[in-house]
Amino acid sequence: MGRSAIVLAAGHGSRMKSATHKALHNVCGKPMILHILDTLDSMELDQVIVVVGQQRETVTEAIAGRADIAVQAQQLGTGDAVRAALPQLRDDTESVVVLYADAPLIEADTLSQLFATRAAQSAAVAVLTANVADPTGLGRVFLDEAGTVSRVVEEKDASDSERQHRLINTGIYTYAADALRASVAQLTPDNAQGEYYLTDTLAILRSQGHKVVQHAILDADEIASVNDRAQLAQVEKLCRARIAQTWMKNGVTIVDPDSTYIESTVTLAADVTLLPGTILQGNTQIESFAQIGPNTRLNNTTVGQGATVQYAVAEDSEVGEAAQVGPFAYLRPGTKVGKRVKVGDFVEIKNSHLGDDTKVSHLAYVGDASIGAGVNVGCGVITVNYDGEQKHRTTVGDNSFVGSNVNLIAPVNIGEGVYICAGSTVTDDVEDDGFVIARPKQITKPNYVKRWKLRKKGQSLREGEDHLGH
Amino acid sequence: MGRSAIVLAAGHGSRMKSATHKALHNVCGKPMILHILDTLDSMELDQVIVVVGQQRETVTEAIAGRADIAVQAQQLGTGDAVRAALPQLRDDTESVVVLYADAPLIEADTLSQLFATRAAQSAAVAVLTANVADPTGLGRVFLDEAGTVSRVVEEKDASDSERQHRLINTGIYTYAADALRASVAQLTPDNAQGEYYLTDTLAILRSQGHKVVQHAILDADEIASVNDRAQLAQVEKLCRARIAQTWMKNGVTIVDPDSTYIESTVTLAADVTLLPGTILQGNTQIESFAQIGPNTRLNNTTVGQGATVQYAVAEDSEVGEAAQVGPFAYLRPGTKVGKRVKVGDFVEIKNSHLGDDTKVSHLAYVGDASIGAGVNVGCGVITVNYDGEQKHRTTVGDNSFVGSNVNLIAPVNIGEGVYICAGSTVTDDVEDDGFVIARPKQITKPNYVKRWKLRKKGQSLREGEDHLGH
Amino acid sequence: MGRSAIVLAAGHGSRMKSATHKALHNVCGKPMILHILDTLDSMELDQVIVVVGQQRETVTEAIAGRADIAVQAQQLGTGDAVRAALPQLRDDTESVVVLYADAPLIEADTLSQLFATRAAQSAAVAVLTANVADPTGLGRVFLDEAGTVSRVVEEKDASDSERQHRLINTGIYTYAADALRASVAQLTPDNAQGEYYLTDTLAILRSQGHKVVQHAILDADEIASVNDRAQLAQVEKLCRARIAQTWMKNGVTIVDPDSTYIESTVTLAADVTLLPGTILQGNTQIESFAQIGPNTRLNNTTVGQGATVQYAVAEDSEVGEAAQVGPFAYLRPGTKVGKRVKVGDFVEIKNSHLGDDTKVSHLAYVGDASIGAGVNVGCGVITVNYDGEQKHRTTVGDNSFVGSNVNLIAPVNIGEGVYICAGSTVTDDVEDDGFVIARPKQITKPNYVKRWKLRKKGQSLREGEDHLGH
Repeated sequence: MGRSAIVLAAGHGSRMKSATHKALHNVCGKPMILHILDTLDSMELDQVIVVVGQQRETVTEAIAGRADIAVQAQQLGTGDAVRAALPQLRDDTESVVVLYADAPLIEADTLSQLFATRAAQSAAVAVLTANVADPTGLGRVFLDEAGTVSRVVEEKDASDSERQHRLINTGIYTYAADALRASVAQLTPDNAQGEYYLTDTLAILRSQGHKVVQHAILDADEIASVNDRAQLAQVEKLCRARIAQTWMKNGVTIVDPDSTYIESTVTLAADVTLLPGTILQGNTQIESFAQIGPNTRLNNTTVGQGATVQYAVAEDSEVGEAAQVGPFAYLRPGTKVGKRVKVGDFVEIKNSHLGDDTKVSHLAYVGDASIGAGVNVGCGVITVNYDGEQKHRTTVGDNSFVGSNVNLIAPVNIGEGVYICAGSTVTDDVEDDGFVIARPKQITKPNYVKRWKLRKKGQSLREGEDHLGH
Repeated sequence: MGRSAIVLAAGHGSRMKSATHKALHNVCGKPMILHILDTLDSMELDQVIVVVGQQRETVTEAIAGRADIAVQAQQLGTGDAVRAALPQLRDDTESVVVLYADAPLIEADTLSQLFATRAAQSAAVAVLTANVADPTGLGRVFLDEAGTVSRVVEEKDASDSERQHRLINTGIYTYAADALRASVAQLTPDNAQGEYYLTDTLAILRSQGHKVVQHAILDADEIASVNDRAQLAQVEKLCRARIAQTWMKNGVTIVDPDSTYIESTVTLAADVTLLPGTILQGNTQIESFAQIGPNTRLNNTTVGQGATVQYAVAEDSEVGEAAQVGPFAYLRPGTKVGKRVKVGDFVEIKNSHLGDDTKVSHLAYVGDASIGAGVNVGCGVITVNYDGEQKHRTTVGDNSFVGSNVNLIAPVNIGEGVYICAGSTVTDDVEDDGFVIARPKQITKPNYVKRWKLRKKGQSLREGEDHLGH
Repeated sequence: MGRSAIVLAAGHGSRMKSATHKALHNVCGKPMILHILDTLDSMELDQVIVVVGQQRETVTEAIAGRADIAVQAQQLGTGDAVRAALPQLRDDTESVVVLYADAPLIEADTLSQLFATRAAQSAAVAVLTANVADPTGLGRVFLDEAGTVSRVVEEKDASDSERQHRLINTGIYTYAADALRASVAQLTPDNAQGEYYLTDTLAILRSQGHKVVQHAILDADEIASVNDRAQLAQVEKLCRARIAQTWMKNGVTIVDPDSTYIESTVTLAADVTLLPGTILQGNTQIESFAQIGPNTRLNNTTVGQGATVQYAVAEDSEVGEAAQVGPFAYLRPGTKVGKRVKVGDFVEIKNSHLGDDTKVSHLAYVGDASIGAGVNVGCGVITVNYDGEQKHRTTVGDNSFVGSNVNLIAPVNIGEGVYICAGSTVTDDVEDDGFVIARPKQITKPNYVKRWKLRKKGQSLREGEDHLGH
């Protein structure tokens, strides 16, 4: 078929007021230029050329070899940008779409239809148009009786009646490759800005007897473009809504789509429920009947069927079926918790495996550990995995009981069925069925406090402790 | 009066793509079918019949005896569904409203007006209509000069000019009971789907000289129906806005109503402030000058006057006047905290009572405990309520001081005015005014670390500890 | 120039259903009356008079001397309120703007234009008007051929055709001081309410041959007023959007402006990123490349370049360059953390300084402490700063290692390069390079648990511990 794309990504975007190139700003967690490349990838084109200019190194790096790169040396307009790309265009190219890195919502279906429209009508170029409620500032597209494009009138050149016209030019075109080469070569900078405008190719081609046709887009949101952060927020909102709509159509309950943030890389089963403030990122995958949120962020995390994760943050983790996580839990990379596991409040798990039915209910840290099934990790338990120089691992066997406020000084191996009393600091390995205690006896001094406080009136009470040898 | 209702709840709702029946999906925390039943309950009708079909057992279970149940064996259309209900309709019924389990926002006032419209005009049936901006897909209702309904034209049968007509049929009707029985009996499945359409009763009744009248609803949002999850989210949003509006009219400040989620069962006093991300559920009750949120979820929880609860989750709990909870606190069922209590950050309270003016400021767990008034529960304190087999209770008397990182091994009773030194593990009861310490003496090895680290270069530092007998 | 303002703030606002005066309700974190005063301050007027009435003491207190106060004894209408202010008006006043405490979004530019309009046309009064989509309930302003105001028709007096008129009276006027004094003196309460209406001055002045002109506002949102909490929420939303738009134009990425809450006192650098659920209050200042949120509240807090703060709350704190805070961290007043510091999950810092590169990664409390640079504060570490009577300070020198679950009993000074073993309670000062341990030896009873559990079947396991002398 010989279909190619030229993506204009040279302009840095001064109204963004950013040290970062416009094309690299994120929409729904992904740089805009990658939205375009992902869309083009899905179309299986024969060639994609990205025209870079300002900050070309960082833009090229972000593209990561997924497209051919052309360099526009100076920002002399869209026509100049396309001209910079043409030497790279393969000889066997039949048709070319020109589009923009700052309009990331364009869909593959739309572009395919634009290719098809040109081909079906044997036109030199097909213009993507849109009917919009407010055409202010945009070029108006007028059709002749045959339905082909007779002319495009820019805002500044439009009469009052022409300004009422609501069919506008999106600036996205598919060209016959020859027509593109020929017409771009004839562009001149005869305008106030002294720039080469790609739009002028339409008049050139028409004046030379070529056919210029159009395809009107149904959803004008697809062509929303980003010139400042306010528009970035608008495009982000549109992108977010589009993703949410897709999942809702597929059977996901999203209680408040406006406050739910799902990246395009996420996979959700039917009958998943997402509560407000949920943020799902990367290769996150949620199974049916799981309930996520409120106020939960999952990145590259899988959640099994029927699990609940609330007020929690998880990265690069796996949560088993019917597990309960949160509120206020933090699963750091390398966490894998089994079925029916409870990771409760104020618990951090890092680089650890918890077997099925194990509970870490509150105020605990499990790091670099392998905990068996059916283990009770008490409140305040800490795996002491760092000695100031190195990290070490802890293992605990099935059905062991780790009492509250126990310190497990790694490396340490606790067997199965072990019982560790609350408040103990464990430094040595314990075999299966062992009982461990490591805490001092309680010393009680009866009827002491009133006299002591009287004596220490206005002073630190801590000195009182010293009397007891502490 | 003999007023009855027939609620159609047979269809499972294939576009919901759910294992759960459509009528059982929640809107603002309550299944749609129960929204309808609550509305009908408030009207004190003489009989409510719910027509069930697919998943009839679970739908019937959810109804929990609040309505008579009729079974539609096959899904043969709305007319067939009503026909299935008629044998159950009481003989003394005078009028019947027919409505739908998937349109949960209909209000009792509207239905009462629809009953009254039919009665006042001695009509066989009154149609609930609405003037909508976009009538696409809906049956258009045409009136004759007398204002009675002359015909209803379905979308597929409508001429171009008829399609411009914006008075539409909501599908909700009140019938004279006799007219309903007679007309439903005459329905035929003479249509493409081979179904029995309840709408056809209007033409039947009119053709037989009966009067068909209409009542136009003011707020078309009331008839929003749910066929997929996108519509579920829309109806949820409408329901949420309705509840928020009610409370705002009653003097509640809601900083961002779009991000505040209040179930219909909640009670709020004037001069309550709700900050963004607040979720109020069940029988939650908030007194005046309390401030809830941001990002707080309260379920079945009462909050006293002037209290603040921020970044917290509470279930089945009571928070006293002027108490401060959070940020990052978790009150589990059975928590009752007194006046001016502070439950600070990273604190869990469960099944416990805290007396007035007591503080649990940070990183503590109080479970199965009765704590007196004026107690200071230090940072890191844990009530060790579980021994691996059983849960035990802890008591602490008024004005006691529980030092940081203290473990209270339950069952244990601490008297009033007791002082427990930081880091102690307490296993034995302490009488009033007792002083407790249970921790080892500090061993300091001066000028040791540099030499030790040098010696252990690249090895685990932990071995160094072993030299000290640990 | 002799420009003054009279702000009407007498009415308590019964529809607010509040114990608090309407003018004192917050919009974007600031009482409405202070929004007006801040706007007027920026105009550098010669005098501002606030007319108080109901709850005059609290309103006057909120104004805090920033304006002259006039008292309206009874609520007899806007004309009466202005009359109450006139005795205070300085003799050298040339022109006066009258505006309202419950319409806090009015902008200084608009008021300046209104002053200029009156002056340029040598009019007695200039009316601020607006073209609105729905003028229902508002006075319609009609102009004569010269473009001056011919009459204002109130809703109740308007004909059907007059009701279609969409140029409305905002009620905000600039007067020549003499014209104001003269016309207000002529107001009569000849109306149904028996009140003195300021609007009547327009007819009085016109009838006496004075010129009445108008200036139409572009953005009708500026004149949104607050009579109930629903309108309060709307004005809050407008105010929030306005602030967000300003920062976005200045190069701040706001992923979801609808769920981001920025007070007007906050300062943000370009290339700051704000994630959903971020609340920025008071004198908060964020440097470029910092990322704040999600679900983070910062009050009077500075955040250095490239720092990240997520799921955290901070008040009166300083966060250094490239520091990482959260998720689930709480920085209380007096916190100052250096460059590249990590304050991780379930960590509270209060009134403490952390040197560069120090880490407090999880489940720790640092209060009233000075911690050096490069210190590792382990998991579960607690600075025991309160002895029940007094607060004490802790110091830790550079590059020291504080092991997990260590209690530092303040006052205590730990030198540089010190190593404290996990689980120790430290009561005594430690010199540089000291090594500290304070924990009992581990006692292990092998092969004990099965027999013990068998023996204690159904009883508390805790008794088993007693056998070991605990």
